Amino acid sequence: MNIREATAKDFEKIWPIFHEIVSLGETYAYSRSTTKNEALKIWLTAPKKTFVFEEDNQILGTYYLKTNQEGAGQHVCNCGYMVSSSARGKGLATAMCKHSQSIALEMGYKAMQFNFVASSNTGAIKLWEKLGFLTVGCLPKAFNHPTQGYIDTLVMYKWLQT
Amino acid sequence: MNIREATAKDFEKIWPIFHEIVSLGETYAYSRSTTKNEALKIWLTAPKKTFVFEEDNQILGTYYLKTNQEGAGQHVCNCGYMVSSSARGKGLATAMCKHSQSIALEMGYKAMQFNFVASSNTGAIKLWEKLGFLTVGCLPKAFNHPTQGYIDTLVMYKWLQT
Repeated sequence: MNIREATAKDFEKIWPIFHEIVSLGETYAYSRSTTKNEALKIWLTAPKKTFVFEEDNQILGTYYLKTNQEGAGQHVCNCGYMVSSSARGKGLATAMCKHSQSIALEMGYKAMQFNFVASSNTGAIKLWEKLGFLTVGCLPKAFNHPTQGYIDTLVMYKWLQT
Repeated sequence: MNIREATAKDFEKIWPIFHEIVSLGETYAYSRSTTKNEALKIWLTAPKKTFVFEEDNQILGTYYLKTNQEGAGQHVCNCGYMVSSSARGKGLATAMCKHSQSIALEMGYKAMQFNFVASSNTGAIKLWEKLGFLTVGCLPKAFNHPTQGYIDTLVMYKWLQT
């Protein structure tokens, strides 16, 4: 297991994971038809940093880290995590989330916020709670789920500094 | 009183209002030293639409409207409003917020979200509540206020469709 910063070269291996997850429309607030070029910008160019979880020369997971709000909010970061369907249930999301919290502190952030967690994504919600995140908001019917329709969306938050 | 869509030409008159408010650092999550060019992008180029409140050939207020999240969240918009200090207390924010709700519905949005309302901004909070917004989240210490330090930030939300 190795989590390392992504390079532009990694995108060929990140794209299948991104596409697999985003095209389902069940978890992320990106268009289900996001193109490869748009994904490159969203996942690798726009964030402050992007990481990959690598094992046996395979990329099995990835996450980005960015500033959630500028100016008065610039001490709070935001992350997004993706795990290949072939590597679920092995603790990759836990490993990446813990890693991201360390990196965030190193980078000078004081807190981490998830802006848009679909309430249907109970596995993720349980995991973030286990890792110390609190549900600090609930946006009514803010997520248009492909099979469940308009469902609530959670805002989750963790103060990282001790 | 006239609220109309802004043109690129209006930016010369929008900038003093933007700069006056943003340089104080008390309400918006933009860098206090945001440049004129950055402001142009933030307020006029990036949003879906921008409006100005005009009276006697003077621009006294302005607001933008954009999609808050893409894909599964694209039915929820976000707005930001600014009123020149010379025109406060005259109901401009109320007029612009009501206007923006009509425009949002016309554009096909179903809800409106304010992501980052400093808890110190009690005037705005009262106003949004009066206009039907609910506080749906509270981000602990997410706003670094220039005199009050780290204070809580509210997420406010209104389902527009009846």
